[in-house]
Amino acid sequence: NHRQLLKQQFARWVVMCFIGIFTAIIACSIDIAIHRLSTVKYSLLKSYFDETMKTSYLFIPVLLWIAWNSGFVLIAAILVAYGEPVAAGSGIPQIKCFLNGVMIPHVVRLFTLFCKVVGVVLSVVGGLAIGKEGPMIHSGAVVAAGISQGRSSTFRRDFKIFTYFRTDTEKRDFVSGGAAAGVSAAFGAPVGGVLFSLEEGASFWNQALTWRIFFASMMSTFTLNMIQSYIHGVPWQLSYPGLLNFGQFSDISYTGAEIPIYLVMAVVGGLLGALFNHINLKLCIFRKRHIRTPLGQVLEAVLVAAMTAVAAFLLIYFVEDCQALGKDPIVHPLQMYCLDGQYSSMAAIWFQTPEQSVKSLFHDPPDSYRPLTVALFGIVYFLLATWTYGLSVPSGLFIPCLLTGAAWGRLIGISVRGVFPDAEWANPGKFALVGAAAQLGGVVRMTISLTVILIEATGSISFGFPIMIVLMVAKWVGDLFNEGLYDIHVKLAGVPILPWEPPHLTSNIMASEVMSHPVTTFDMNETVGHVVNVLKKDLHEGFPVVDHINPAPNQPGRSTFGLLRGTITRSQLIVLLKNKAFTDPTTGIRGSNRLTLDHFREIYPRFPKIEQIHITEREKACVINLVPYMNPAPYTVFDNTSLPRIFKLFRGLGLRHLVVVDKNNEVIGIVTRKDLARYRFESHKGSKGLEELQMSFN
Amino acid sequence: NHRQLLKQQFARWVVMCFIGIFTAIIACSIDIAIHRLSTVKYSLLKSYFDETMKTSYLFIPVLLWIAWNSGFVLIAAILVAYGEPVAAGSGIPQIKCFLNGVMIPHVVRLFTLFCKVVGVVLSVVGGLAIGKEGPMIHSGAVVAAGISQGRSSTFRRDFKIFTYFRTDTEKRDFVSGGAAAGVSAAFGAPVGGVLFSLEEGASFWNQALTWRIFFASMMSTFTLNMIQSYIHGVPWQLSYPGLLNFGQFSDISYTGAEIPIYLVMAVVGGLLGALFNHINLKLCIFRKRHIRTPLGQVLEAVLVAAMTAVAAFLLIYFVEDCQALGKDPIVHPLQMYCLDGQYSSMAAIWFQTPEQSVKSLFHDPPDSYRPLTVALFGIVYFLLATWTYGLSVPSGLFIPCLLTGAAWGRLIGISVRGVFPDAEWANPGKFALVGAAAQLGGVVRMTISLTVILIEATGSISFGFPIMIVLMVAKWVGDLFNEGLYDIHVKLAGVPILPWEPPHLTSNIMASEVMSHPVTTFDMNETVGHVVNVLKKDLHEGFPVVDHINPAPNQPGRSTFGLLRGTITRSQLIVLLKNKAFTDPTTGIRGSNRLTLDHFREIYPRFPKIEQIHITEREKACVINLVPYMNPAPYTVFDNTSLPRIFKLFRGLGLRHLVVVDKNNEVIGIVTRKDLARYRFESHKGSKGLEELQMSFN
Repeated sequence: NHRQLLKQQFARWVVMCFIGIFTAIIACSIDIAIHRLSTVKYSLLKSYFDETMKTSYLFIPVLLWIAWNSGFVLIAAILVAYGEPVAAGSGIPQIKCFLNGVMIPHVVRLFTLFCKVVGVVLSVVGGLAIGKEGPMIHSGAVVAAGISQGRSSTFRRDFKIFTYFRTDTEKRDFVSGGAAAGVSAAFGAPVGGVLFSLEEGASFWNQALTWRIFFASMMSTFTLNMIQSYIHGVPWQLSYPGLLNFGQFSDISYTGAEIPIYLVMAVVGGLLGALFNHINLKLCIFRKRHIRTPLGQVLEAVLVAAMTAVAAFLLIYFVEDCQALGKDPIVHPLQMYCLDGQYSSMAAIWFQTPEQSVKSLFHDPPDSYRPLTVALFGIVYFLLATWTYGLSVPSGLFIPCLLTGAAWGRLIGISVRGVFPDAEWANPGKFALVGAAAQLGGVVRMTISLTVILIEATGSISFGFPIMIVLMVAKWVGDLFNEGLYDIHVKLAGVPILPWEPPHLTSNIMASEVMSHPVTTFDMNETVGHVVNVLKKDLHEGFPVVDHINPAPNQPGRSTFGLLRGTITRSQLIVLLKNKAFTDPTTGIRGSNRLTLDHFREIYPRFPKIEQIHITEREKACVINLVPYMNPAPYTVFDNTSLPRIFKLFRGLGLRHLVVVDKNNEVIGIVTRKDLARYRFESHKGSKGLEELQMSFN
Repeated sequence: NHRQLLKQQFARWVVMCFIGIFTAIIACSIDIAIHRLSTVKYSLLKSYFDETMKTSYLFIPVLLWIAWNSGFVLIAAILVAYGEPVAAGSGIPQIKCFLNGVMIPHVVRLFTLFCKVVGVVLSVVGGLAIGKEGPMIHSGAVVAAGISQGRSSTFRRDFKIFTYFRTDTEKRDFVSGGAAAGVSAAFGAPVGGVLFSLEEGASFWNQALTWRIFFASMMSTFTLNMIQSYIHGVPWQLSYPGLLNFGQFSDISYTGAEIPIYLVMAVVGGLLGALFNHINLKLCIFRKRHIRTPLGQVLEAVLVAAMTAVAAFLLIYFVEDCQALGKDPIVHPLQMYCLDGQYSSMAAIWFQTPEQSVKSLFHDPPDSYRPLTVALFGIVYFLLATWTYGLSVPSGLFIPCLLTGAAWGRLIGISVRGVFPDAEWANPGKFALVGAAAQLGGVVRMTISLTVILIEATGSISFGFPIMIVLMVAKWVGDLFNEGLYDIHVKLAGVPILPWEPPHLTSNIMASEVMSHPVTTFDMNETVGHVVNVLKKDLHEGFPVVDHINPAPNQPGRSTFGLLRGTITRSQLIVLLKNKAFTDPTTGIRGSNRLTLDHFREIYPRFPKIEQIHITEREKACVINLVPYMNPAPYTVFDNTSLPRIFKLFRGLGLRHLVVVDKNNEVIGIVTRKDLARYRFESHKGSKGLEELQMSFN
């Protein structure tokens, strides 16, 4: 009734508010933990380096560095490889699948959150070429699922609240809000967060929902700014510019004449991004084949961590780039072989977290780095980042891409400054920002959301146009070679995700070619034994309910499976069986009363497997009446409906299966997401490695 | 084929680029024309006032003022009332309908653009309480429709380009881009523009389309900034802060403690907004009843223009608020009865365009206005604005709302400053911004797009959270009383627009209750005479094609209209008739060869009326075979499908009609947008005046 609707409406806002607050708190905790631990790490390393510099015992701090990195990454990798493998990586591909309507097991569990949060702190502190932003977005999604469902399966607790949100659609709506809140907390980009959720997840634009997502997103930034303003010693000053992630660029200025340079950089970003994706894809295929055991995964992660320390040390040792102290706020200035009063610029980039390095490359005074320093750093970091993404540790992709791009962008900026030494606009930091955008755009191929995230994270609205142009061109160039890295990883996992638009040139493909058949159907009254047998054999999620099974072909060459009356899902049948909602035909005794919506909500979303349901031989003879539970008016299409129309139905309405009927409304086939997703893969003739696809999820 | 697809894809980007550029040029022209003409106006008035001040001939400048206002508004009103009535108002309700899938005649014609552009310049210069932003958005939409269709029906020219974009869907996509470019040009808010298009128009989120819309939007801001930077004397300085519409707020700071004050202001904004909408609705109903002739409309517009001058003069005459010259950049400082070296603050607000007044209230030094000045100005402007919106002149709603809100917001700011005289945060300009947001939010009830527009137009990302909270609360409060003003005007026009979500508590309403019946159907082969007769009698847009008409009830109490084979639209039938695509059954002579897609595109979108097609008596006996032209696989629903499911189909797939079939696939009814929109009206029991609804469009 109306009052209950108002209550639900209000509860939606309350849930979104808490999603925002908790996501921000988790993001802050990650932030603080990383900050504290890496301060300890780099202070310790600096003091050891400073002490042993004049002696021949320089191997001591190097070993310490390797040990520190390996130790932290070891724990992170064990947590992921043995604890919760789905916590590996940035989590964005998984969230993308989830929002697209494909449920990946464990992806929004509390234990996954724990592994992700602890793991990402350890990995960043362990010095890997990763960021914490992707995992923060994943955390937001888990928080959203947890709060909105009012229970935790990790702790086996059910708080019996918000039971009316226990449907796939509602859960997905809240997870959109959580992902937005995650972006918002990670980058301080509330509008970018909303656009991220829309770009990655939405198929159907809904004003009220978008507004709630924006609320979660804003609450997240607000909470984050509150906590950060306390930490920065300016409590309640919510507009303090020091809260911006990558430093404030508000005074940035540019002239139209710079745009050609940016276009060249965008092309470079697109090419490097495509190269990054190519190498990473090859590595991931290699991993899938040869590093299959958790032990192997842990060892590889530890190896990468050790190699990162070695590479950094070698660069610091061999590249001599001494800068005078004082120009630039360095927290751990390492002197190395520089004169007194100077510090090694190469060491300065390495002796901080990757995020701080991005900030340094964006904002350090023009002459803080020699060209060779940023060039070598960029190359090494690029290679480390390609190797790292895909390891069995939580690892964000944004920061390594931004950092690589900032390095080569700054290199271009230094060159431009060399050519136009007096030009006010030739600020290397600005070019570092453009390079970072180009590199990130070339790798992830996101569009409007990434533009807005970068605008918000740098606080420079006026620089939005160059950023957009750069992302657009980088995406175009990259798309000539391969897909975005998240899409590559989704495909590697074999998830039947649906793209935004139907594949081109498919309008002559008809439902009759796309559909699967024969179709398993149920009569309106079915014996329990038959239902159990079918569910054990047939793994589909939905089944048509028909009036009368007619397996004999009624036309030459074509068979129908009965007159369509409705559809019923696997989980509904399982709940019916579990609750013994059937009748003994000989005695007329009913196993239970008619089930209500609560019976289904209580068990959602972890329906037992059919094997877990105990059915006695006697019960197998009982009869279930499916009519009260089936969907009596399913969406259907005719056999001559074209693929693009079917596609539009799936995307527009979020379907999972669709019954194909002939002109007499008799069932002749069923179309599932997998049937449709198949056409996506086939349409991308260019991309190799398709044979590697395995359906590992679902 | 594939190459053609690539060409189309490329053409889409090119068209979007030109949409952005031309929209910006039009917006700039409006801007410059208004600026020049109003400089002349106020210089002239000032010199007359200064001269006659010491004499008793003060009536001379007042009459001049009245004459100027009335004269300009007279021309604007004649253009609209006699030229193109659809050019009246802001155009946003019309764009909303267009994007929602309801075609309003003439709304995207070139002549409408001409009336709108010239009209809005004249009306703003005529001193009405209106803005130019809404008409700019409408202009963007017309530009988009014109460029994408490659022809103009005003000039009867067809450039034969982009013929593949001549479908409703493609046109709508481009118009979304045009509306976004319009917002972008009007407020310098490219991201806000995209969100505006999505919020008002999108039902189906499409990443590639959104990215193109963003491109149009960005091109528009870019072009605008290029032109503006030349005008401001800083060519190519695209990030010059003077380009911001409402001045730069980037140094704005706020503390958490201010939020309660903002919440109170949001409630005030919601209440005042609801009051505004209520008064305006009553006035519009009055107008619809009593001011029906173009002459009456012109006279009313002139009356309002004269009254605006009178009201302004009375306020300037009676309110004494003298401020020292020099503190504040006043272009036309009027001395009135002030001492030498002083100017009348009340005159300063009136002696500039409303947009400049908003800027003044936002940015003038704290003590520039006495409380009485802003209070009286706010009240008078509120009343004038309610009276003005809905007149037969092009008139944007944003600026009058912002100005009213800025006035009472500044009043609150002055009071807060009185209570906390030393507080750094007690800046009246900031409170004026909050008031402006609250008032505008209370009137138009837009959500995320308005937030982003205000953030971008003021350049203050950090102030986004308070703006969002204020808009949210203002919308909630306003929604308790009535709907947003654009929705009110859409309803007044009787357009069957579909809301975002199905009305609540309608899940027990079935297709059989919603649908219209009996249904006019066609056989697969129909005589021309029958088709012509049906099209003359039945005004529906779509008709089912059935296997065999069966008008007799085959079940007691229910009739079916034949087995569904496909659907055909009115415009298809008209093209078939026009091209004589029929066969003489006696001679076997065919009127024309089989029609191709080009026949339909050539005539799109202005299909002739059935009365305009000449059919001889002999042709009436001919037979049309509908099978090659009909849609053979229409979306259908069963009679027991619930209203929310039907609704989802309409919104998700952008349908206009949907055939209802029974279990045997026989047609039993048809659901149109009007049938669905009816349920919206009925669900809003609270809002009165529904009996006034007339279906004036379509």
